[in-house]
Amino acid sequence: MTATSKLLVQKYGGSSVGSVERIAAVVARIARDRAAGFDVVAVVSAMGDTTDDLLALASSVTGGALPNAREQDALLATGEIQSAALLAMALIARGTDAVSLSGAQAGISADGTYGKGRIAGIEPRRVRAELDAGRVVIVAGFQGVSDGSETTTLGRGGSDTSAVALAAALGADRCQIFTDVRGVYTADPRAVPAARQLPVVGYEEMLELANQGAQVMQTRAVELGWVNNVAIEVLSSFEEHPGTVIKEDTQVEKRNKVRGLAADTKVAKVTMVAVPDKPGIARSVFDPLSAANINVDMIVQNVSHDGTTDLSFTTSRVDLAAARPVLEQIRSSIGARALEIDESVAKVSIVGAGIQNAPGYAARMFGTLADAKINIQMISTSEIRITCIVSESDAPRALQALHDAFDLATPDPVDEE
Amino acid sequence: MTATSKLLVQKYGGSSVGSVERIAAVVARIARDRAAGFDVVAVVSAMGDTTDDLLALASSVTGGALPNAREQDALLATGEIQSAALLAMALIARGTDAVSLSGAQAGISADGTYGKGRIAGIEPRRVRAELDAGRVVIVAGFQGVSDGSETTTLGRGGSDTSAVALAAALGADRCQIFTDVRGVYTADPRAVPAARQLPVVGYEEMLELANQGAQVMQTRAVELGWVNNVAIEVLSSFEEHPGTVIKEDTQVEKRNKVRGLAADTKVAKVTMVAVPDKPGIARSVFDPLSAANINVDMIVQNVSHDGTTDLSFTTSRVDLAAARPVLEQIRSSIGARALEIDESVAKVSIVGAGIQNAPGYAARMFGTLADAKINIQMISTSEIRITCIVSESDAPRALQALHDAFDLATPDPVDEE
Repeated sequence: MTATSKLLVQKYGGSSVGSVERIAAVVARIARDRAAGFDVVAVVSAMGDTTDDLLALASSVTGGALPNAREQDALLATGEIQSAALLAMALIARGTDAVSLSGAQAGISADGTYGKGRIAGIEPRRVRAELDAGRVVIVAGFQGVSDGSETTTLGRGGSDTSAVALAAALGADRCQIFTDVRGVYTADPRAVPAARQLPVVGYEEMLELANQGAQVMQTRAVELGWVNNVAIEVLSSFEEHPGTVIKEDTQVEKRNKVRGLAADTKVAKVTMVAVPDKPGIARSVFDPLSAANINVDMIVQNVSHDGTTDLSFTTSRVDLAAARPVLEQIRSSIGARALEIDESVAKVSIVGAGIQNAPGYAARMFGTLADAKINIQMISTSEIRITCIVSESDAPRALQALHDAFDLATPDPVDEE
Repeated sequence: MTATSKLLVQKYGGSSVGSVERIAAVVARIARDRAAGFDVVAVVSAMGDTTDDLLALASSVTGGALPNAREQDALLATGEIQSAALLAMALIARGTDAVSLSGAQAGISADGTYGKGRIAGIEPRRVRAELDAGRVVIVAGFQGVSDGSETTTLGRGGSDTSAVALAAALGADRCQIFTDVRGVYTADPRAVPAARQLPVVGYEEMLELANQGAQVMQTRAVELGWVNNVAIEVLSSFEEHPGTVIKEDTQVEKRNKVRGLAADTKVAKVTMVAVPDKPGIARSVFDPLSAANINVDMIVQNVSHDGTTDLSFTTSRVDLAAARPVLEQIRSSIGARALEIDESVAKVSIVGAGIQNAPGYAARMFGTLADAKINIQMISTSEIRITCIVSESDAPRALQALHDAFDLATPDPVDEE
């Protein structure tokens, strides 16, 4: 794999190609990048609501039954093929030579799990040949081919993954993810008006920020970029403004160690109260939940008193309806005194690559929340993150107070160098 | 190539799969054919107006310029892939195992003329394997693959052609073309109320009937059926009624030799008046028309008087706007006295495989029109057809009179045996 010089891989999401006018804006941008001397590979999602419309149609013809997964993939993948062909013909009509390729034509192979395929490999010969012929290559995102000829979609955020994987396979200089936000911020700007856009963020930090509710791009694509060391730029397709570059951050040691805040208000807290403290209890709780396909996030079990302990964890609120009967059965089988479910909590996190070596940050986070009279219900830490569960109604104040306390509105001197 | 026992290849046009309800009706029919012991391969067109909608979108993004042909094919082919996937998932949801295949997956290769590809060959291995596994195979019509991986559409009526070619490659017992008419009639029932549906019609007769304005199915598909001796049944997808079978007719000698009437009211008559009668004149007229891509149909040149002759031909009215300046230039260059264009004519034809050996039919046709006080402007004959150009306003009466004269309302005794 040799690096192509000056190659950009770009990804345009559904809203970026959602209308004739938006497609014209993409054409103008690509033409400008070509004029600046870049080769361009653009990965596109389906236009606007196309995927939802097709899903509704599938549900209608099957009378509401779950559509066959293979057929649903064949159906959905047409949305991206359409937007790719439309973008290619729009470029050609404006004088920029281009060619659209389906996932199969672009050499993207996927494993055979319909609806949630993973990229198994990319054979970029055709893409390279088209680039060498002077063409912009438009690739239908969200899809690959399994078993030689079976169309397989890549699941949520699949187009981000297609783009990063292509950037890796082609040795691109940068993978640009065009979206409806300017980039990654120190906190959600809607919650914290002083939030500042970060010029650079490390892969691991981005993963924690993404997982913690700041949905800028898909976790899988970030992981793939990390493994392959692809520099990813998240930027707005609606305005001209530099984005946030996600890359291996060599400046970690010099930075203000807290890089950003994340908040997730879609969680529920579950507590098994006064569980008899004996070996195997945790398994008795989490095996049945796993079997019922219920995702569990933070788990906290504290030391026991009088032979019993409280076992708490968080789960997503949308999973809760399915989880309730399972939880009730677990409570009874392990002999817990009570089952408590709180649907009005939020996760608030500070994220930064330096946190693990600086215990002072945890103390400052807890102190800041205490000063703001915000009660901390649960605490969990990872190497680069400290998360507190607080009441949902306290979350906005918590974010504001933490943003001030860690001085996140002030640009990092390292980035100014 | 071995014949599969009891295999039906069916083709459902855009209106037959144009809504959730119509798809449900197709599901019911296929399930019934399966229950009756048939293997089924169904070729589908895009739903309702999908193709027109996609063409409009293509025109929008290219700012009205002609879209790149390769990209337009990639775009349009998604319409049939969608309807194929929807029909397959609808069948599966109702308990009939099925699988959808794109043209490429079905092994249909096309030559590389985008937008009007021709089927170059079919490798039916995958289709056979799916049939052997007990599945109904739904094939996206109107498309094949060229150069190994380039999606290529087959042009107008392409789905009919896909179906007949698959029937030939699979050795199907019958190819059923579901449409919005019951079959082929002795005349257009809207013009001749007594018109009778024909149970059987020969390939050559069908070609003449199709070319003469009775648009039931595409000429190309009939030719392909003829060459491969595929029995084609044209029938209604909206009601339960036996259709018309197009096949090698072994009963020709026993039949009432006129099988049906055709009328075409979309023609114009062009006459170059008093053309100097010398070698090379016909070429001087028709070479420039061919270069301008203007189709010419009937050509009549009669014997000359005083060194000049009249040269007449018909063309389609939609081509006339483009043809006028070309015709005016031709008139001047060949020194014809005048150019006459009549846009109010119609072609009326009698069609039957026995006509060439029975001159009495021509006389009876001309006599019938004379009795009805209908003036014959031009006459042209082929081996199985006699066509008269008459005034468009006379066409309905001409059809009615000819239908009576040739006793077409009475069933053919041969078909009653």
